[in-house]
Amino acid sequence: MKNFVFIVFASLLAAKGFSQSEDSTMIKKISDEILTNGRAYDNLRHLTKQIGARLSGSPQMVKAEKWGVQVMQESGADKAWLQECMVPHWVRGGKEKADVLYNGAITGARNVLLFHKQLDVLALGNSEGTKNKELTAKVILVNSFDELERKKDSVKGMIVFYNYKFIPTFVNTFFSYGDAGRYRGAGPSRAAQYGAVGVIVRSMSHSVDNNPHTGATRYDSAYAKIPALAVGLRDADWLSNQLQENKVLSLTIKTNAHFLPDTIGHNVIGELIGSEFPDEIITIGGHFDSWDPGEGAHDDGTGCVQTIEILRAFKAIGYKPKRTIRFVLFANEENGLRGGNKYAEEAKAKNEKHVFALESDAGGFTPRSISFGGSPEQLKKLQGWIPLLYPYGVYEITNGGGGADIGPLSQALKTPVAEFAPDTQRYFDYHHARNDVFENVNKRELELGAVNMAALIYLIDKYGL
Amino acid sequence: MKNFVFIVFASLLAAKGFSQSEDSTMIKKISDEILTNGRAYDNLRHLTKQIGARLSGSPQMVKAEKWGVQVMQESGADKAWLQECMVPHWVRGGKEKADVLYNGAITGARNVLLFHKQLDVLALGNSEGTKNKELTAKVILVNSFDELERKKDSVKGMIVFYNYKFIPTFVNTFFSYGDAGRYRGAGPSRAAQYGAVGVIVRSMSHSVDNNPHTGATRYDSAYAKIPALAVGLRDADWLSNQLQENKVLSLTIKTNAHFLPDTIGHNVIGELIGSEFPDEIITIGGHFDSWDPGEGAHDDGTGCVQTIEILRAFKAIGYKPKRTIRFVLFANEENGLRGGNKYAEEAKAKNEKHVFALESDAGGFTPRSISFGGSPEQLKKLQGWIPLLYPYGVYEITNGGGGADIGPLSQALKTPVAEFAPDTQRYFDYHHARNDVFENVNKRELELGAVNMAALIYLIDKYGL
Repeated sequence: MKNFVFIVFASLLAAKGFSQSEDSTMIKKISDEILTNGRAYDNLRHLTKQIGARLSGSPQMVKAEKWGVQVMQESGADKAWLQECMVPHWVRGGKEKADVLYNGAITGARNVLLFHKQLDVLALGNSEGTKNKELTAKVILVNSFDELERKKDSVKGMIVFYNYKFIPTFVNTFFSYGDAGRYRGAGPSRAAQYGAVGVIVRSMSHSVDNNPHTGATRYDSAYAKIPALAVGLRDADWLSNQLQENKVLSLTIKTNAHFLPDTIGHNVIGELIGSEFPDEIITIGGHFDSWDPGEGAHDDGTGCVQTIEILRAFKAIGYKPKRTIRFVLFANEENGLRGGNKYAEEAKAKNEKHVFALESDAGGFTPRSISFGGSPEQLKKLQGWIPLLYPYGVYEITNGGGGADIGPLSQALKTPVAEFAPDTQRYFDYHHARNDVFENVNKRELELGAVNMAALIYLIDKYGL
Repeated sequence: MKNFVFIVFASLLAAKGFSQSEDSTMIKKISDEILTNGRAYDNLRHLTKQIGARLSGSPQMVKAEKWGVQVMQESGADKAWLQECMVPHWVRGGKEKADVLYNGAITGARNVLLFHKQLDVLALGNSEGTKNKELTAKVILVNSFDELERKKDSVKGMIVFYNYKFIPTFVNTFFSYGDAGRYRGAGPSRAAQYGAVGVIVRSMSHSVDNNPHTGATRYDSAYAKIPALAVGLRDADWLSNQLQENKVLSLTIKTNAHFLPDTIGHNVIGELIGSEFPDEIITIGGHFDSWDPGEGAHDDGTGCVQTIEILRAFKAIGYKPKRTIRFVLFANEENGLRGGNKYAEEAKAKNEKHVFALESDAGGFTPRSISFGGSPEQLKKLQGWIPLLYPYGVYEITNGGGGADIGPLSQALKTPVAEFAPDTQRYFDYHHARNDVFENVNKRELELGAVNMAALIYLIDKYGL
């Protein structure tokens, strides 16, 4: 296959008339620099271990922004600055709980032992809590929205337990996420519509552990904003079994999640000014904020340190871009997208010419693919470069879209966008959970992601799009 | 790229005239079965946690063989048996040590504090020890065999420290392994040739931890069999720095590694008998033995449980192979290859017709590639099936070879062979080290390996090669 594809592409390349040899030499230089002298892993260690999780509005957000500007400067940016934007300030407000009271073993003729079990839960992001007071109610199990509709008359006053399972048969786990996401996003309001007083949502993961996975929910303003918790998979299975056996008497939940007033956050921007077309801007970035339970390692510390690494590597090998390259650590992707919106607004207001934007927000895993949102002709041009990326792990460029943070840019300015799409098998083991930590990132996988992105940026800078 | 390749392959497929739709339906069925009901992960948990490392001749080897036959039967083999072979019986004989005596901080005008540091070491497999006695000598640093040649007159009576580094710039880490392997294999005898009394070899890894990585060495019978130890990377860097500053006074090593007489081991074989061509045998396997420091998870517990999983999945979906399929857990790959040799010898003696053999011995990581050793026509035929494997992660089939265990079969009977080649980035973090444990295997990556191998076996069974 390798040989075969190369033969096909060789003729394509000849037709396109670019110098594969010069480009492959340059890309090898980039790769050698990153794999030998790379700083991404050490930067990630600092970001995760010295700063930690970086939820919008948190003190760690402020600390990270400060460090971000400093590391952009140290990595050789011509300019580095903070772009201010207001960000939502949701707080967990302490440890949640969800205690089940259930019938246990039968002892003797009439005695049934009652037991408590603490479920491992996390309040969903942007959810409202119980104001730290206990709320006790019966639980109703629904495995899908269809089942909710069938049971809608029984939901009033209850806590709805959405036990919709992550589909294991999709090879690309983002399809499972796309499928199950509606329960986290719309589940609380759909339950509230029928009078539920709270929801518990099965975590969106097929991990083998019991970590709950948080993430943003979206209340429909037409209904009560009821408390909403994510529960770990083992506890979800346990609860489902108990409910099916009619053993559960009640569930007591307590969460202090709430919003504080919006506060000031920033996109962190570093820039290399183009030598030939300084007005043409290429953006590369990840999002700097993260959920609070872990360290925001794969989501999206890795995208941020890869972004910085590409800047560092370009400077280290003495590459002078023709076009202006912006390295952006976006604010508030997780629960507001205010950073991405701000970046697009300002670009539009200043009438900037944005020729391409690339995001890394699918974890620091081994490279496989790039997803592209632009015209068919542009897609074809990018696909013509696959032989140059192939030795570093990217073997396909698909018709898709960019990451969330560059979506507003794509909408406002019709900028072609792309997202680095590494292997997806492990991502949802860590995503929004307390185990999204530095130790679960592999140094070389992280670096190879930066290599492939740097190569693509180099090619677009050189040839345009 | 995906679309593009598919267009190209679509015409290829049409030309070849096989039914892509029927095959892709069958492969989806295999995949769904493995990703939904897979037993590979639980089997691996049992193998690693209940049995543990399985060095040839160890009690765990015997325990594993017994379990292997049982699980082959439970997974639906028509027949399951043990194929006896003599195996070498090397033992570590207890914990090794390597203590450095070195000059520390200077305190006052004439006082230099002396310090001891214990290096994290493991005796190399098949090495001879110091009979558990302390051996103290000076250390000489060599970064390569070239440097050894230049320093050969200074080596006598010394312990040679090979500090040759794993090359980071190869994207495929097996190239780094192939490059550095000679120091572990030939280093001890090349040092002994010049009178060295022992060697320490930098571990073959670019991990970020300090775990030493063992593996087999090969003594040249012309020279003394001197003790040989692998050292972790951080300790290797430390030792190298101290030696360059002339601070090291001596190194004291102690190892009790030695051979016991050969003992009896077995290949574990399960078989599905072919319905149309029972005499045509397809072999799929991994090796059951492992080094002793960890649990033999990625090397090669994963290959073994994938092998068993393919058997289980074929039975579960009711697939009845045309040809006979042998599922083999080979004995003694790590330090003798006696299992692979025995399998080929018996196949030859019985005049068996082996049409294809596939091994999984590169870890249970996410699928990428398959390496094939056969004729160019056969390779082309396999490559024609890439569109069928592509959705499950294998996007290339390269001209290469099979795994070590099926090498003898390939030599004895000219059987075409292949090796499953998953992503290589993490393999040498764990390879032959104490962290090659169950926890470092991802369930879905493991399962997807089995899916791709099962698909290939299905295609070869159906169409021949």
